[in-house]
Amino acid sequence: MALTGVLRPGHVALRVLELEPALKHYTEVLGLIETARDAQGRVFLKAWDEHDHHSVVLREADSPGMDYMGFRVDSGHTLERLAREVEQSGLATACQWIPAGEHPHTGVRFRFTIPTGHAIELFADKDKPGCRTGDINPDPWPDDLRGMAPSRFDHCLLYGDDVDGTVKLFREVLGFSLAEQVVAGPDGETLIGAFLTCSNKAHDIAFIRHPEKNRFHHASFLLDNWGEVLKAADIISKKDVSLDIGPTRHGITRGATIYFFDPSGNRNEVFSGGYIHYPDKPTITWTDNELGRAIFYHDRKLNEAFLNVLT
Amino acid sequence: MALTGVLRPGHVALRVLELEPALKHYTEVLGLIETARDAQGRVFLKAWDEHDHHSVVLREADSPGMDYMGFRVDSGHTLERLAREVEQSGLATACQWIPAGEHPHTGVRFRFTIPTGHAIELFADKDKPGCRTGDINPDPWPDDLRGMAPSRFDHCLLYGDDVDGTVKLFREVLGFSLAEQVVAGPDGETLIGAFLTCSNKAHDIAFIRHPEKNRFHHASFLLDNWGEVLKAADIISKKDVSLDIGPTRHGITRGATIYFFDPSGNRNEVFSGGYIHYPDKPTITWTDNELGRAIFYHDRKLNEAFLNVLT
Amino acid sequence: MALTGVLRPGHVALRVLELEPALKHYTEVLGLIETARDAQGRVFLKAWDEHDHHSVVLREADSPGMDYMGFRVDSGHTLERLAREVEQSGLATACQWIPAGEHPHTGVRFRFTIPTGHAIELFADKDKPGCRTGDINPDPWPDDLRGMAPSRFDHCLLYGDDVDGTVKLFREVLGFSLAEQVVAGPDGETLIGAFLTCSNKAHDIAFIRHPEKNRFHHASFLLDNWGEVLKAADIISKKDVSLDIGPTRHGITRGATIYFFDPSGNRNEVFSGGYIHYPDKPTITWTDNELGRAIFYHDRKLNEAFLNVLT
Amino acid sequence: MALTGVLRPGHVALRVLELEPALKHYTEVLGLIETARDAQGRVFLKAWDEHDHHSVVLREADSPGMDYMGFRVDSGHTLERLAREVEQSGLATACQWIPAGEHPHTGVRFRFTIPTGHAIELFADKDKPGCRTGDINPDPWPDDLRGMAPSRFDHCLLYGDDVDGTVKLFREVLGFSLAEQVVAGPDGETLIGAFLTCSNKAHDIAFIRHPEKNRFHHASFLLDNWGEVLKAADIISKKDVSLDIGPTRHGITRGATIYFFDPSGNRNEVFSGGYIHYPDKPTITWTDNELGRAIFYHDRKLNEAFLNVLT
Repeated sequence: MALTGVLRPGHVALRVLELEPALKHYTEVLGLIETARDAQGRVFLKAWDEHDHHSVVLREADSPGMDYMGFRVDSGHTLERLAREVEQSGLATACQWIPAGEHPHTGVRFRFTIPTGHAIELFADKDKPGCRTGDINPDPWPDDLRGMAPSRFDHCLLYGDDVDGTVKLFREVLGFSLAEQVVAGPDGETLIGAFLTCSNKAHDIAFIRHPEKNRFHHASFLLDNWGEVLKAADIISKKDVSLDIGPTRHGITRGATIYFFDPSGNRNEVFSGGYIHYPDKPTITWTDNELGRAIFYHDRKLNEAFLNVLT
Repeated sequence: MALTGVLRPGHVALRVLELEPALKHYTEVLGLIETARDAQGRVFLKAWDEHDHHSVVLREADSPGMDYMGFRVDSGHTLERLAREVEQSGLATACQWIPAGEHPHTGVRFRFTIPTGHAIELFADKDKPGCRTGDINPDPWPDDLRGMAPSRFDHCLLYGDDVDGTVKLFREVLGFSLAEQVVAGPDGETLIGAFLTCSNKAHDIAFIRHPEKNRFHHASFLLDNWGEVLKAADIISKKDVSLDIGPTRHGITRGATIYFFDPSGNRNEVFSGGYIHYPDKPTITWTDNELGRAIFYHDRKLNEAFLNVLT
Repeated sequence: MALTGVLRPGHVALRVLELEPALKHYTEVLGLIETARDAQGRVFLKAWDEHDHHSVVLREADSPGMDYMGFRVDSGHTLERLAREVEQSGLATACQWIPAGEHPHTGVRFRFTIPTGHAIELFADKDKPGCRTGDINPDPWPDDLRGMAPSRFDHCLLYGDDVDGTVKLFREVLGFSLAEQVVAGPDGETLIGAFLTCSNKAHDIAFIRHPEKNRFHHASFLLDNWGEVLKAADIISKKDVSLDIGPTRHGITRGATIYFFDPSGNRNEVFSGGYIHYPDKPTITWTDNELGRAIFYHDRKLNEAFLNVLT
Repeated sequence: MALTGVLRPGHVALRVLELEPALKHYTEVLGLIETARDAQGRVFLKAWDEHDHHSVVLREADSPGMDYMGFRVDSGHTLERLAREVEQSGLATACQWIPAGEHPHTGVRFRFTIPTGHAIELFADKDKPGCRTGDINPDPWPDDLRGMAPSRFDHCLLYGDDVDGTVKLFREVLGFSLAEQVVAGPDGETLIGAFLTCSNKAHDIAFIRHPEKNRFHHASFLLDNWGEVLKAADIISKKDVSLDIGPTRHGITRGATIYFFDPSGNRNEVFSGGYIHYPDKPTITWTDNELGRAIFYHDRKLNEAFLNVLT
């Protein structure tokens, strides 16, 4: 198989302060589709072009942030192998199996804590009720979309201390490729940002070095084009959503982007564009003297709020 | 590794009737960059965002068409394994090793003829002089682009008789995934079109059933967005290029597209858009009663010239 | 005043074979908004960014086509003056006053037949209930749009015999400017197409020479950009509307365009782009040897159906 | 005539600290075309789609800012009439005739100082060498454009004290229409922003109330679409130009925009979009509690630098 092992970001589980405003945000502003609620009161959602049952999980809690992020792998056999290798790597802690059915329509998940303190999951089975355009003579887009209407949950950016350990785990055990890195120091010897991919996308998960463990910067969703970024920006104003930054472009990944906050203060991104990554493509390196341009290509300035507001 | 085995379309070798008008077309209209000429008079070109040394090879000949298409694999070890498996499959003929250096800056290539009659190559080594924006603090696009300026050679569409055998070879031996198919007959039992991918792209190579072996429909190049498709259409008129069809959208792959001919009659496509494919995504099926919509989503008519003009 | 006299196309009255399918087309496919019905069963509609009460009138009849097109003038005084000058010009026939209220929320209209056989109206009063975003702290676009959702009715293209007389009337009496013309014959002595404007738009009304009087080619509606032209093309396919031609670009006016038919066979256009016209700008001239490029810039071919299917 | 009197912004004369860096900026970054230099060392430039000889004048001086802005009127007769009416209005000071030829290829200009302290000119004659695509069978855009390549000089935004007097002069004497206004105070009784047009554009000149007379906020140039705004933003970074704000959208006029500075600190804007204005369209009113949204629709915040950095 040409794509094997870890296939894609499968879900992100977010804590929100109040469920109803959060749900209104994720369905009417962002434009996800609710697919289930469970007995604990969690709500499961997906974007219109995703085949899997859900990709976003919302849970009411006392503080916002990310509970865990899950990746789909290609088979139960791979799941067992990777679980074993994660455990044996010595890089992960708190390894545990979550039983099938704990997420609706989802098989067993292997959860572990990575060196930056985040809980990551692997799973091989989740029902695929299909995307909104179907698999037989599909239209290019469905009717009745709402809000920004991204096609997919795309990636997360996470902040934590031991980025070296986390990158080692993702590259050496989970088979990710380092698409882009930001380095600091006189000889560029400190890795302060890592953009990792298990696919042709420019990133499936990214990490920024930060003194605290387990901080969440944003969950990102895919738009089709720069015109949709403008539409998203307009919706942010029409719906009185808290804007962070954008529309603009990242130097890193080339993506055209806009950032905003859900009612609990969790940062969301919608973006479009980028390039096609291959595992034999040289890692792109950004040096800290060009960090402004790396993050926001147009204004080339470090933005304290963007760098430091986390959940 | 998450992406393994066959990585990407690496080159297409085209025959042209006269080299100079062809070169003018591929560099000034399409906007590729010449990277080498060899002693035989072949010209090697690439698109601006490709890291590899070349992706298009032009050769002067008495008739237009495709000599061969090559795919890059992830390692020499994989090359040897796949060569062996291709030979053992009984699906390929005329297997041969092309020595290193036969293409400039390129290692050994394993060439074989697939059931539809086309010559396909696998190779593991080709120098990577890098893309035009570099790997250190890169800009999102380079200056001094010309013409349509696609970022990459993307895929080919080929016509031939034994599509079943070719699809079997690509799926079972080379690890490709069938992203979309067109089926005909009362029970959809005849596969008349197959769109195969070794990546997250909707297609890396595609086949249409046709009574003759080894016919070439088009080589396709990637644009960033629908605005660039309009610019390409304008350039076609400004440069008096022979337009085939477009701007329009395909039902198959959702791509926004325009087709035109090089001076020798070889069809080119530039396109943008599509979706993110995964190997566990169900194959999209188009039924022959919706064939018009599958090919050109907007006018939904079968176009004889598009279906039957081949080189 | 800088803009005086005839201000803009104010309405087009179309005949449709069956009202309900027509209404479904104009509201759900095109995306106009119904604003009134009258005792005769006529339906009045407008586009979302228009301040006037209506801009499209549909009437059930035995044959499709255009009943009349009306232009708003800047005042009752101008209306009287222009009515007198039209009558005195000797270029118009069948001059008559239509009483106030014959269209809802509309004052008296002066109707006359121009040399190409079409009925044209002038009026100074029509209620302005306002556009959908309002005039106080408006959003850039309203919620709840449907279909292609053009912002305005823009212009009509009409076919008739005495184009010279009609152009003389529009230029010399009504103060229009000839933005573009198509000429034929060895010395370009025959005017076969005239694109006339009373504003900064590239055209407010256009005429093509044709042996019959009073034929209707299309009514056109304004989109914001080329991305909306693609969305319109997709909607044409999703809703199984009869496509004429597009997406493409006109040489004349530079507009990016798509044409389609209402259920009665009346042609509609939605388009975007163009340039800013001024009355002292030289008339652009297209010669008949470049007529293909003038009409459809990309394929540069004369299209019999586009040229000859009329209502 | 439907468009009469004052037709359009014809030129803006800017002071720059050093001519050569300024010229590099206006030709290579912005992408204007130099059309003449005169004995005083002034450089005259135009955008590619303008028919007139020049629209921007650069002069080396000790401080940046605007010398004057000129408007083209429809005839010598109108020029004489408006000059007389401006003088008689009592609203203008320092009225003077500038002799023909003081600008190359330009007839006499009538210059006067408006209540906000800015020098405004009217003129009826300037040679029209034509736009870069010509008037016979033109292509939609010319080859060899550089930089952002706007199609036209569009408008200026000026700051000054007596906005009421200036608006009165533009509306009552020069025939402009007040497309949008910003009002402040408990009953909205203070006009703090006025967007005036002599055409179908949303603005041809605009004023903001400010304690000092004769301050220059920006000169604006027209792009075709939001994709060109992104390209402009990328060029700003590639060429290390000082970015002010954007890409974003204005609430006022709906335009999609980006602001930046020339090397002397004069602010430039490139923008696209807006709506079609008519003189009978109700003035859009923004109230000061929505001023943030009025200026920058997405972030809805007052930006001190944007409001107060002037030349």
